[in-house]
Amino acid sequence: MEKIRRNERMSAMMKILSDAPNRIFTLSYFCELFGTAKSTMSEDIDILREVVREFGLGELETVTGAAGGVRYRATISREAARTYIADLSEQLSGTSRVLPGGFLYSSDILSSPETVRRMGEIIATEYYGAAPDFVLTMETKGIPVAMYTANALGVPLVIARRSSKVYEGSAVNINYVTGSAGHIETMSLSRRAVKEGQRTLIVDDFLKAGGTANGMVELMREFNVEVVGMAFVMETATPAKKRISGHKSLMVLDITGDEQQTAVIRPADWLMN
Amino acid sequence: MEKIRRNERMSAMMKILSDAPNRIFTLSYFCELFGTAKSTMSEDIDILREVVREFGLGELETVTGAAGGVRYRATISREAARTYIADLSEQLSGTSRVLPGGFLYSSDILSSPETVRRMGEIIATEYYGAAPDFVLTMETKGIPVAMYTANALGVPLVIARRSSKVYEGSAVNINYVTGSAGHIETMSLSRRAVKEGQRTLIVDDFLKAGGTANGMVELMREFNVEVVGMAFVMETATPAKKRISGHKSLMVLDITGDEQQTAVIRPADWLMN
Repeated sequence: MEKIRRNERMSAMMKILSDAPNRIFTLSYFCELFGTAKSTMSEDIDILREVVREFGLGELETVTGAAGGVRYRATISREAARTYIADLSEQLSGTSRVLPGGFLYSSDILSSPETVRRMGEIIATEYYGAAPDFVLTMETKGIPVAMYTANALGVPLVIARRSSKVYEGSAVNINYVTGSAGHIETMSLSRRAVKEGQRTLIVDDFLKAGGTANGMVELMREFNVEVVGMAFVMETATPAKKRISGHKSLMVLDITGDEQQTAVIRPADWLMN
Repeated sequence: MEKIRRNERMSAMMKILSDAPNRIFTLSYFCELFGTAKSTMSEDIDILREVVREFGLGELETVTGAAGGVRYRATISREAARTYIADLSEQLSGTSRVLPGGFLYSSDILSSPETVRRMGEIIATEYYGAAPDFVLTMETKGIPVAMYTANALGVPLVIARRSSKVYEGSAVNINYVTGSAGHIETMSLSRRAVKEGQRTLIVDDFLKAGGTANGMVELMREFNVEVVGMAFVMETATPAKKRISGHKSLMVLDITGDEQQTAVIRPADWLMN
């Protein structure tokens, strides 16, 4: 086999590591893949760590111990997150996206791969420390951003349904009251989907009064799963008091005006610090 | 500024290119980013193209002309695709995933980031040539794989809903007959979601008789959008005759036995050539 050069090793390693965020790869794995000595591999990783840092491409961490190795995390600096969310807020603000009834059209943003990927990484950055075992979302619009958050955290996504489907097997159903409209709705999750004692991060697209989010918290209680965090793409300015607390939203939405309604969207306060 | 070495440039480039599959980056973009001459940059790209090819990490293509530059495509070789889908088929086969009524539990597979990413890339590999403008799916279970297909193709995802939602604005609704059960269902898509004259790739998790898929085709006709391909994670062996044709599925499902039902899953024929 022809000797593989450092630039070739590093490029391939960059791709392999960033394709599986938060997963630990042993040094031996790369030594075998490239036919290289451990000392050389360590040097490669040291240089790669600097590249990733310098170009704002995330973080490379060396994990010591028996299960040690190197892992990539798709972290985004607070400054980069703030700039990104401020741009997005501006793009969503104005009159053109306001629908009758004071709703905001956001389906395009919520299923643009580039945007949901970035939002997912911003959320994941906040919750790497909480080490969730899976990400939970409620169908439908939050699925893409929850998916990319799960990808960045290196954990599965679990999707709660509006009603139990035959093809999901035996399920736990709970009834909950939607915070804003006061309707009673059903939320369902397959018994196979999660295990007792796991930890979850709840991710969804929209937070108004918090009825649905609170429903997800209750659902997790039924499964004896600990909720270690809650993140939303957007929350409404009113009601200011939500039925949940301790969550992080990326943006805050305020719809003003009577006849000609305008959406005023700004990055959430925590992003500004 | 300190001079950036080739191994640093190549690693950063690998990450930037593979984060935005199918998007053309000009040579000037990278020259400015790294403060490097075009000739050096061209050499970097030549080496990187070989690395990507050698380690089976996709393809790097140089696009000539006025809008030229370099783009990364997340292609997967037929052989690698076959191996991956064969492994997955084996994992899904057996008795443990069969639910009452002959359904297959697959929610975990369909929302595991690693799996849907890979499946999305296998599908995208088949449809880069068709150059769709967006990927269309029907909520809910197909969203993750459709999302990753869209990501690999560098296009937006569009999600058709089971009924029109107030927060999606004015919508086109169609009624369609589900092929298997013969129920009449409604499918809805916001008028803002797509533009006349666009091209779409339909991606969904499951194909039985093809009623829903056919509904999506009809929905696209209402929008004057051309369907350039259809791909599914799994199709059932029966009925053998579907209401659509020209599609590609990754796996074929057959459920056999009466009292103790067994799922027999195999890679689709086209993967075996």
